[in-house]
Amino acid sequence: MDTVILSDWLAARLDRTAAEPVYRQTLRLMQQAILTGQLPPGTKLPSSRTLAEDLGIARNTVLHVYDQLTAEGYVISTTGSGTYVADTRPDAAAVNARKKPAVARADAPGDPAAEAPKPPKRGLSDLSTRGRRLIDQAGVSAKQWGAFMPGVPDVAEFPARTWSRLQARLWKEANPDLLTYAPGGGYRPLRRALSDYLRVARSVNCTPDQIIITTGIHQSIDLAVRLLTDVGDRAWVEEPCYWGARSVLQSSGITLVPVPVDDEGLNPSEQDLQQPPRLALVTPSHQYPLGMVMSLARRRTLLEYARQHNVWIIEDDYDSEFRYGSRPLASLQGLDDAGQVIYVGSLGKMLFPGLRIGYMIAPEHLVDTFRTGVAELYREGQLMQQAVMTDFIMDGHLTSHVRRMRALYGERRQILIDAITARFGNELPVIGDEAGLHLVLCLPDHADDRAVTAAAFDAGVIVRPLAAYYSSATPARRGLLLGYACVANEKIGPAFDTLARVIERTALKAPTRAA
Amino acid sequence: MDTVILSDWLAARLDRTAAEPVYRQTLRLMQQAILTGQLPPGTKLPSSRTLAEDLGIARNTVLHVYDQLTAEGYVISTTGSGTYVADTRPDAAAVNARKKPAVARADAPGDPAAEAPKPPKRGLSDLSTRGRRLIDQAGVSAKQWGAFMPGVPDVAEFPARTWSRLQARLWKEANPDLLTYAPGGGYRPLRRALSDYLRVARSVNCTPDQIIITTGIHQSIDLAVRLLTDVGDRAWVEEPCYWGARSVLQSSGITLVPVPVDDEGLNPSEQDLQQPPRLALVTPSHQYPLGMVMSLARRRTLLEYARQHNVWIIEDDYDSEFRYGSRPLASLQGLDDAGQVIYVGSLGKMLFPGLRIGYMIAPEHLVDTFRTGVAELYREGQLMQQAVMTDFIMDGHLTSHVRRMRALYGERRQILIDAITARFGNELPVIGDEAGLHLVLCLPDHADDRAVTAAAFDAGVIVRPLAAYYSSATPARRGLLLGYACVANEKIGPAFDTLARVIERTALKAPTRAA
Repeated sequence: MDTVILSDWLAARLDRTAAEPVYRQTLRLMQQAILTGQLPPGTKLPSSRTLAEDLGIARNTVLHVYDQLTAEGYVISTTGSGTYVADTRPDAAAVNARKKPAVARADAPGDPAAEAPKPPKRGLSDLSTRGRRLIDQAGVSAKQWGAFMPGVPDVAEFPARTWSRLQARLWKEANPDLLTYAPGGGYRPLRRALSDYLRVARSVNCTPDQIIITTGIHQSIDLAVRLLTDVGDRAWVEEPCYWGARSVLQSSGITLVPVPVDDEGLNPSEQDLQQPPRLALVTPSHQYPLGMVMSLARRRTLLEYARQHNVWIIEDDYDSEFRYGSRPLASLQGLDDAGQVIYVGSLGKMLFPGLRIGYMIAPEHLVDTFRTGVAELYREGQLMQQAVMTDFIMDGHLTSHVRRMRALYGERRQILIDAITARFGNELPVIGDEAGLHLVLCLPDHADDRAVTAAAFDAGVIVRPLAAYYSSATPARRGLLLGYACVANEKIGPAFDTLARVIERTALKAPTRAA
Repeated sequence: MDTVILSDWLAARLDRTAAEPVYRQTLRLMQQAILTGQLPPGTKLPSSRTLAEDLGIARNTVLHVYDQLTAEGYVISTTGSGTYVADTRPDAAAVNARKKPAVARADAPGDPAAEAPKPPKRGLSDLSTRGRRLIDQAGVSAKQWGAFMPGVPDVAEFPARTWSRLQARLWKEANPDLLTYAPGGGYRPLRRALSDYLRVARSVNCTPDQIIITTGIHQSIDLAVRLLTDVGDRAWVEEPCYWGARSVLQSSGITLVPVPVDDEGLNPSEQDLQQPPRLALVTPSHQYPLGMVMSLARRRTLLEYARQHNVWIIEDDYDSEFRYGSRPLASLQGLDDAGQVIYVGSLGKMLFPGLRIGYMIAPEHLVDTFRTGVAELYREGQLMQQAVMTDFIMDGHLTSHVRRMRALYGERRQILIDAITARFGNELPVIGDEAGLHLVLCLPDHADDRAVTAAAFDAGVIVRPLAAYYSSATPARRGLLLGYACVANEKIGPAFDTLARVIERTALKAPTRAA
């Protein structure tokens, strides 16, 4: 394409009625002509005056286009001698270095991009092995709200006005120190407030220094895993357990060892005990998702085993603020005198999940390490939000909100249990301690809880299949997780009726194939 | 300790003047007596009435203590027959399973915790190999603000009132949908606003669907790495490069291959080219930290090489909004027609770092994968903040703030360069394009830039040594990163005077040892 043809070619493509300005169109078209080789290296461009006249556009527009082409390296301008297309063709020797090394650029037979056949577009097969497993096993739900979504508090009950008022007060000053990156560990007054709260509410044993603010359980586990384990290390996880923790561990190269739970919590077999893991992730206060409490004997055994065999313990103290029958039970961390327990928790379940404030308690001798690690890996910020959270706690709103929600969720739990009993009597037992934001409704062993979940979804009710929480493909129990916390009292009955019909239709028939 | 002694033992330890309530003291002391074996399993506790009388405290207090001890499994209450200490000793067979298997619990010779010598407290040696490397190589600074902290915008200039007003408006409604977890990818209106912005400002080629909201560059890189690479895969990083990216890659099990940069950007050697990596992380618009622009020929070669050898490219488009001499240069992503470039960027440098909103552009065929991945790994939230950000962009505040900051930072850059030239003439050259939030002041080859940094810190001036950005222990250049964006105009001169004295004292003497 010589320079006369360039004018015609551009004129045929410029659209003066398009939203895209003429400047951008001209620039884009000329870049395209150079990249495809239609304007080969060395071609002299028409003068800006000539091109402007040919196209009937302002000369300044052409000058800007030429400037930008020069700045981006498409053309070379030499004062006095004009503007030439630069040689920006891919370096064939470099591109093909692996196949036929040492072909000098000077010998390159043209544009390899134009010659090589394009490989097919990449697809899912391009994911790495760990990426593919992460996606294939993903437990995250596309819907996050509605009856009976487990693990979600009633965000409509959150005192948004109070929050907004505290927030407005802090933003009025907008202390620049709170707009930069967070120093390792987070906002100090929040760490102090949380250590006071957790010492009383959860019987943990810690100083404010030991508190590390994170964005939640996922990040807390991720940090501990990256600091304390290596690729290929083994970790005990409860069977069943929270899918998210499994994903975080696996994608950091950890080999999972599912350890069964019974009524007293984690119950490792003789074989499990023979091979101490590097890490054990447990939910002693309220097993997730089944709901039992780890007995004191098991706690002491686990701590002593960990001490003897150098095992790190991550205590996920999920949901522990919401106990309806009795007082909260003490944390495992409070029993640890060897500095082996890393305690992790979150404010999202108490307030609203979108908040993304979690915390962990680092062992005293690793505080500096964890503070450096959290800053280095995640470059934390959000100090304004942490300051709002601090005021929210210090003014007593956290405890009063949790107290109010405890009463409300306890009520909802009872309404749901009454509905279950009225419909199914003892046929479908409910398991777990009286705590948390969900309950587990057991299904007969022959039932396919994943299929029931899908059918319920079609009928407008969200549940989660217990099977999804097992690492094993043949889960020991079948059941459904029903979250009641986020469902208004009067909606529980009707939603459960819908679910009950689905269960009767899909799970309570005797298995006909087997008969 | 029998039950009479228990009363005395407790009485001697209860402190009625302490802040800790008597209930909590009694509970804690009894737990301690049981855990240490001072109250052995099977011991019958005194009746609540007796203990209350012995201690001179309310019977109800003792009843509450006994209830909690029962709930937590320390004691067993049998109606009519009294309350006994439970056997919660660690299961010796389990604890020692590895050493002498198959010792039944019944034969356990007492409390192993009391017998086994305590191992020494754990220390830094307990970190994993990757954890130790992360901490040893950590680049994160304890101070995040002040002359001449690189990479930090002037947060005092952020229009906090505008932000606060938009925020207050959204919190007034507090739509519950915005308080829950974020659906994969983030708040849709923000994704639309960002794709519009990036198409124009950065010449990227994307739909709103391809935008994934993250908490920043670190998380964006982490997600791409976990989805697209496996442990042991090799990644090209620029030499020098951003320390944070290096830490994120390494802690995911990636082997780093540092590839030198020259005036045209990434310049792989013959040997590098022979072994295609799985991933290449580049900063084409403005090499970090040196500041050069990757030439068009190098861009096309890299894209073509990646296409031929199935290499993923992460384009970190760091700082690209701040160019003082010329218009912004187009992104590498816009040249990619094979779907191999993952573009990552952040709003923190434009607004304030504590914001923690970043974005990435996923290749079209991997959009669903990336959306699932981000939700599964990080359980994102912060939709309220994303909604505020959307309004901030849609009302034009982002572009006007960036325009204002561009003028201000350009001015500050010039003030700093003038100060450098006035003091050192051409002795210490400044390298890099006229862009970004920092410049690199070169030091003589014999200078120890880490030592200069330490001395400057003692003198009250923050800089970063260029050596910290090299993977190699023998960096090709010596120099200092000076951030000018966050320093008020009138403070630049005095701070530089202080720094200049440190440089003259520590770096400009001829190396006496070698002489």
